[in-house]
Formats: sequence, C-alpha cells, structure tokens
Amino acid sequence: MKIGIDIMGGDYAPEEAIKGVISYLKSHEDSGADVHFVLIGNPDIAAPYLSLLDQWQSRYTLVPAATVIGMNEHPTKALKEKQDSSIAIGFGLLKQGKIDAFLSAGNTGAMLVGAMYTVKAIPGVLRPTIASPIPKLDGKYNFLLDVGANADCKPEHLVQFSVMGSLYAKHVLNLDNPRVGLLNLGEEEGKGNILAQATYPLLKQHTGINFIGNVEGRDIFLNTCDVIVCEGFTGNVALKMAESIYNIFTETRGVHDEFLDQFNYEIYGGTPILGVNAPVLIGHGISNARAFSSLIENARKLVASNFTEILRNSFAETADQVTV
Amino acid sequence: MKIGIDIMGGDYAPEEAIKGVISYLKSHEDSGADVHFVLIGNPDIAAPYLSLLDQWQSRYTLVPAATVIGMNEHPTKALKEKQDSSIAIGFGLLKQGKIDAFLSAGNTGAMLVGAMYTVKAIPGVLRPTIASPIPKLDGKYNFLLDVGANADCKPEHLVQFSVMGSLYAKHVLNLDNPRVGLLNLGEEEGKGNILAQATYPLLKQHTGINFIGNVEGRDIFLNTCDVIVCEGFTGNVALKMAESIYNIFTETRGVHDEFLDQFNYEIYGGTPILGVNAPVLIGHGISNARAFSSLIENARKLVASNFTEILRNSFAETADQVTV
Repeated sequence: MKIGIDIMGGDYAPEEAIKGVISYLKSHEDSGADVHFVLIGNPDIAAPYLSLLDQWQSRYTLVPAATVIGMNEHPTKALKEKQDSSIAIGFGLLKQGKIDAFLSAGNTGAMLVGAMYTVKAIPGVLRPTIASPIPKLDGKYNFLLDVGANADCKPEHLVQFSVMGSLYAKHVLNLDNPRVGLLNLGEEEGKGNILAQATYPLLKQHTGINFIGNVEGRDIFLNTCDVIVCEGFTGNVALKMAESIYNIFTETRGVHDEFLDQFNYEIYGGTPILGVNAPVLIGHGISNARAFSSLIENARKLVASNFTEILRNSFAETADQVTV
Repeated sequence: MKIGIDIMGGDYAPEEAIKGVISYLKSHEDSGADVHFVLIGNPDIAAPYLSLLDQWQSRYTLVPAATVIGMNEHPTKALKEKQDSSIAIGFGLLKQGKIDAFLSAGNTGAMLVGAMYTVKAIPGVLRPTIASPIPKLDGKYNFLLDVGANADCKPEHLVQFSVMGSLYAKHVLNLDNPRVGLLNLGEEEGKGNILAQATYPLLKQHTGINFIGNVEGRDIFLNTCDVIVCEGFTGNVALKMAESIYNIFTETRGVHDEFLDQFNYEIYGGTPILGVNAPVLIGHGISNARAFSSLIENARKLVASNFTEILRNSFAETADQVTV
C-alpha cells in the first residue's frame, strides 16, 4: 500500500516527519513491510533529512511540492491559491488513487476542506467527523467523536457518528460489539440539552449499534463504554482538557504514572477523518517523529482493514439503520 | 448572620453535615464568630449527632423537618408534595428572611427549583446559574459557569453569566478586574458553534466586563483568565471531567501532587446558585465534614460581601450593560 505523507506539515517539519518515517521503518519491519511511502514536500528544504533515508531508497518516492499551507492560513482560500502546496498535491494523489491514504500534521482546516472537496463524503454520510482516542483507566481507550469538525449538530448527525465510531472501533480497533455512550450532563434518559434529549431515543431504537445510554464527564476516562458521541464543540473542549492533563502533570508537575503516559498523543499520533472516500489523518501541529510513526501505523490499519469500503457498504444500505 | 443547613441532605447526612458544623466552629473561631447555625432536619435521626454539639448550644437552633427529598426524586413533584421536607422548610425560612443563606448537599434539582420558586430570580436576571471553581496550575482557581443548570443557552444568557461570574470573582473571591474567557473550540474570533460565534461580539463590546477573548479546553487548568463562560452542557462535562481527575489520580493511581490536591472538591465544598434573591449553595452528594465546613465558609462570604445586593443593584441598572 502507498501512504502519502505531507512532510512539510507540522511545527517541526520536514525533520520530524522524515524521522517519523525512519522510526516507522525500523519499528515495523514486519507489519509495515508492504508500506511504500509517498513523501510530498519541497525537495530543497527536505534534502538534508532525506539523506537519512538513503538505506530505504526503494521504500519511498518523493513528490515535489513547491509551497506549504501555513498553520494560520484560511483553509479554503489557501487550498485554492496554493495548488502546488503539499496538502493540495497530497489530496490530488489521493483522489487519483495514486496513494491509499494521506496524512499531514499541517493546517487542520485545510485537511478537512481538502478531504471534503477532493475525495468527498461517502454517499449517505451527512457530515464526515473527526475522532480521537481518550485513555481509559483500564489501559484501553475510549473513542470520542466529534472532536471539532462539527460544532453544531442535529440528532441525525450524532446517530451517524455513533455508526461510524462503532465501525471504527470494531474493524480498526478490533473491539467486539463496541458500546456507544451519549455524552450528557446526567445519566437518566430525558436529561440533557435539546440535542441530547432528541438524540437519545434515536440511538436507543437503532438496531445497528450497541447503545448503553448516557455517559457523563466523569465517564470519559473510565471503561463505561467504548465510543463516546457528542457534537464537536463539547468534544473539542473535552479532548483539549484531556490533552492538557498530560502536559500539566507530566511536564510541569513532574508526575510519573503509567495511566498518565497513555495521555501522550504521540501514542496514537492524531485523528482520522471518518466518512470520506479515502483514509485521511490529521496529526498534531507539534508532531515529533514518534507521533508521525504512530500516525503512519494508524493509516496502515485503516487501509489494511478496508475501512473506507466498510463505511461505504454500510451507508449504501440505509443511511441511518446500518448494521455494524 | 444565620446560615441554614439542610442536615438531611447528602449521602452521609446527618452525621457529616453536623460534623461539618463542628469542624467549622473549631476552625473559624474568629471569622465565623457571628455565624449562627439553623439546622434543619429530623430531630430523632439527628439526635445522636446533635449531642456532639453540646458545647456550642448557643450557636445553633434546630428546626424540625419530618421528611427528606431523596436524591432521585423528581424536584418539582417532591417539593410540592413534601412541604415538611428539610429543603422545603429551608427555602421557607430563607424566603421569610429567618435565615441569610441556605445550603444543602441533597437533591440538586430540588435546590434549583426551590430557589427559583421561593426566593426567585433577581429582576433582570434571565437565568440564574450555577458555577464551580476549577483549579489553576498557579494555585488559584478559574470560576466556571454555567455548570449544568442551563443546558441550552442564548447569547444573552452567556453575557449575563459573564457579568454574574465577574461580580462573584470581584466581590467574593476578591479578584481585581477579573478576566472573562469564552469557552470555545479555537482561539480566534469567528471560531465556534453558532452560540459562541454570536456571543463573542456581545462580550467584546460589553463595557462592564474584562473580556479577554476565547479560551479552549486546554486553558481550563491554566491562568489564561479568571471566569470561564459557557452553556451548562459543556460546562457540566468539563466540571465532571475535572472532578474525575482527582478521583482517578489520587484514589485509584495513588499519585500525590499539590496541584492535584486542589482538585479535591472538599476545599470549596460545592457550588453557589447565582442570580437568585438570597445566597443558596449546593453541596456534593458525597459531602463529608470538610466539604460541609467549606460550604459554610462559602455561604458566610456570600452573606458578608452582600453579594445578593450587589447583583441586584447591578441588574437594576440595565440587565446587559452593568458595570462590574
């Protein structure tokens, strides 16, 4: 399989992106044996780091991209004006099927817009969504979605997030019959804002998911469920709170704890965009080599599991009553 | 001043409520010298613990209440049917001015409904709100509101929460020119869901508050601002996540850290209802003696600072352009 990487994206690009590829090649000699890397970026800037890949010349191809979309550029405007940027070229390759997955630690908005306008939403998917693992006290992870792509949602969007999250948990995370919880401010049915109150009965009657009811903020780090569904506003606040816990306790307070280690985003590297016609992954802006390596493995799993095909088949049946 | 306490409210009532009073009397001999306690509850059930108060007989009065509103009872129904309950009697005393503040660790919904229907909202206040301190890395606290009373809000509600939160931070927490942040999924103006996008310009043009812009989930534990404003759905999730961090790391993981200690709710004891015509405070269901003692001190400060009068004066001027 061919995994496309925007080597210009992220605060420490291209160095860490390329070192991430090296780290992956070294640590995934078996499982990653069929991965060919398509590195997209400025050859001159990347040259000093590409030389580190000399012993793996057969494992990668460099696709030149003259420009970069900056972290603070307007996504739609930048994608339109910078067609020679690494993100624009990456999505071009993805659309043409020249790469099987595309990942970048660059401008998140440009990645979302690029995914929506090139590979596009899967037919039947109302709103593609971004999801993130959140560590659970038992060593596993909850899968939280949406975490920011969809700030305002309707009940039917949350139902689809539940389906996409369940399918991801089952086929990519290999969880059997994943439990779905609706993030809410109380446990009982009937609690919540208008959105949560209207979503609850739809999830309850949905035969394609294993809905266990409402979960609260205190359940986010516990093994109450496997997939936590909410609109992207609350999900984004929850994700950023969780991420800040790692920085605060590990870096500022010097606390060492195994559970705390699970909060390190480098372990999972970033977030997939679910519901578009090809695997697209967004890394953290601060991604280092380890984070890039994790993101690559995540991309490999998405491709190897045929996840896009699974989503497409599910949503082809009926948009709101698919079977997981 | 007279502080009314529902000694039947909470999982460990009446024992911990009464022990909380004793703890307060012992630890606040000076600042709490003018506090007289009005203990509301079932005399028979409370008798074994009331005997612990023998040496402070002049400092308290017992007001009998035959029944208790259970933690899971329907608030409105229970308040109507159980007029001899400790919460109903407490609000009766508060309305008549026989106590200056009322606190309970019992049914949160009944406390909210009781406050709204007896002492009622201050004229001009659209929605009374509940707020909670959230620890900051510098040893201080952010003041987060709303944390669950108002799951669906309009921009004008968030503006009023900003005003009430600022006034509380200034007059009760003694913060000079408290900074208000709007909880959002991005830093820049224009980011957010429809509510946040519509609220931002209202806060920006408001001359009565010190608005510093958007804050994100990662700012909740930092000293980015002093008052964090959001609707009660996201605020409730954020609060419960923060609370769970203390339990997870301290109790389950055995981590000891000074910053983590600040997460212990026993330090502040509970949450005030802001925007009603008398000080009302809600304690945690699991309140122990220390938590009750903190809640009492919180009630004393609210009364001593004339906070209700300050709110009333502010909202009497104009509802949306008060000066902090």
